[in-house]
Amino acid sequence: MGEESKKWVLTVTAQTPTNIAVIKYWGKRDENLILPINDSISVTLDPEHLCTTTSVAVSPSFDQDRMWLNGKEFSLAGGRYQRCLKEIRSRACDYVDEKKGIKITKKEWENLHVHIASYNNFPTAAGLASSAAGFACLVFALAKLMNVKDDLGTLSSIARQGSGSACRSLYGGFAKWIMGKNDNGSDSIAVQLADEKHWDDLVIVIAVVSSRQKETSSTTGMRDSVETSMLIQHRAKIVSEVVPKRIVEMEEAIKNRDFPSFSRLACADSNQFHAVCLDTLPPIFYMNDTSHRQALSAFSPS
Amino acid sequence: MGEESKKWVLTVTAQTPTNIAVIKYWGKRDENLILPINDSISVTLDPEHLCTTTSVAVSPSFDQDRMWLNGKEFSLAGGRYQRCLKEIRSRACDYVDEKKGIKITKKEWENLHVHIASYNNFPTAAGLASSAAGFACLVFALAKLMNVKDDLGTLSSIARQGSGSACRSLYGGFAKWIMGKNDNGSDSIAVQLADEKHWDDLVIVIAVVSSRQKETSSTTGMRDSVETSMLIQHRAKIVSEVVPKRIVEMEEAIKNRDFPSFSRLACADSNQFHAVCLDTLPPIFYMNDTSHRQALSAFSPS
Repeated sequence: MGEESKKWVLTVTAQTPTNIAVIKYWGKRDENLILPINDSISVTLDPEHLCTTTSVAVSPSFDQDRMWLNGKEFSLAGGRYQRCLKEIRSRACDYVDEKKGIKITKKEWENLHVHIASYNNFPTAAGLASSAAGFACLVFALAKLMNVKDDLGTLSSIARQGSGSACRSLYGGFAKWIMGKNDNGSDSIAVQLADEKHWDDLVIVIAVVSSRQKETSSTTGMRDSVETSMLIQHRAKIVSEVVPKRIVEMEEAIKNRDFPSFSRLACADSNQFHAVCLDTLPPIFYMNDTSHRQALSAFSPS
Repeated sequence: MGEESKKWVLTVTAQTPTNIAVIKYWGKRDENLILPINDSISVTLDPEHLCTTTSVAVSPSFDQDRMWLNGKEFSLAGGRYQRCLKEIRSRACDYVDEKKGIKITKKEWENLHVHIASYNNFPTAAGLASSAAGFACLVFALAKLMNVKDDLGTLSSIARQGSGSACRSLYGGFAKWIMGKNDNGSDSIAVQLADEKHWDDLVIVIAVVSSRQKETSSTTGMRDSVETSMLIQHRAKIVSEVVPKRIVEMEEAIKNRDFPSFSRLACADSNQFHAVCLDTLPPIFYMNDTSHRQALSAFSPS
């Protein structure tokens, strides 16, 4: 390509909502591939409210991959970003825009650099799964840009390698992350249980009980839990049937739009997740006095 | 006995300290006999600081059993009080005081009534084991009064039927409540691991993080946990070795005055107990934001 042809810029913008787990993901069996120790289920929030908007651009004039998060440049050196970029690039397909005179072959994508600009319209690292929305959006936007033809299941397994719960943010409505069994993670993907129209009078209220950033990152916290909590083993083990049983009941509750069961299971599983955090050395506290009262009031007749 | 002989009153006063479990008792396998689902270990506090003082009196002029707690009359109708009174009475022995001209035969104890006055010099139902000190003191004072000749092990199994952890308050220093295996509870007794001189530079600091009475009684809380918490099963099961392993390690730490191990085990077990409370439906919160910070600082290098 000559100097003249370096002037073009190809851009794709995507928007991805965050998701709130109702059966929690907590603990990895493989840190690098981000493979979980149990299935999880989430509700995808309405992108009108909490979402990430990511624009990805490619141009022969870009000399390196770069990223800006909420307007501030952010290093892409981390393994998780590199893995997502590599996975998407390896699936890139020929792209042709005859009107603009742009043609990028599968081979050329390997040497083209991208610029990424991502915005969250909600607080980062405050328990609202900003990394889930962020990685889901990044992977989806890059896949569109590079004309990747794989299905959402495959994209979900790539987003998973950025942030575990990101795999669930590729679907609206209700999503299930199947933990999978393969060592290479190929079957650890998210699937949609029901779309956003299935239960459209279900409303999620987010109450802000603290505006401070959480003190322990999910990555560090779940690693400590897996290494030190004796209770987490029981929670996830197939033989114990704690989470596996809840997954089955939660799928049934969603299918039947059974709010009493749905809320009972979500509260019980959330409390058990916080219990495992407390059983971790050193203990992790994601609740405070205000959320304690809220958790209790969820069980009071009203 | 004539009218004249009704004038005598025989009194015994005892003082019993409270105890703080370092491997927690939480959950009964028998509600009536108060038989626990796991062994527990406690440190008995210095009676100079937190203790119950109980005076028991007997007189032919008393026409019913009565009790005053902190100066206020208190019903003895509850099954726990009745069981302790009955157990002690059944073990009463002949009593003779020639100087005062009092003679009470084993048989006569059955028809004599007692008056009980008990004082706690610390808050009741605030997590400081007031019922442990109270029942230990009651049983010990009654046993002295009625000339019971059984050993402390037997008395501990009677105190246990008043309040589980009371069995540990009959000993100074470090006590272990052996859960036992028999259905009738005969082997569910407390034993002394080491006396109060064994580790005399160990100091317990009690920090008041809330002056409010706890919202869930231990009795109700542990019943709910046993019925609803899935994690508690794992905690106590012999096969899982969580508590049994900690008991062995804690006994070793006490024997060797090994403070790093002692404090690590005590903190971990306390956090796991709180984790089980959180996993209970409805969840039980015995910690607040202040105790969270204290629990965390226990793990920080200082």
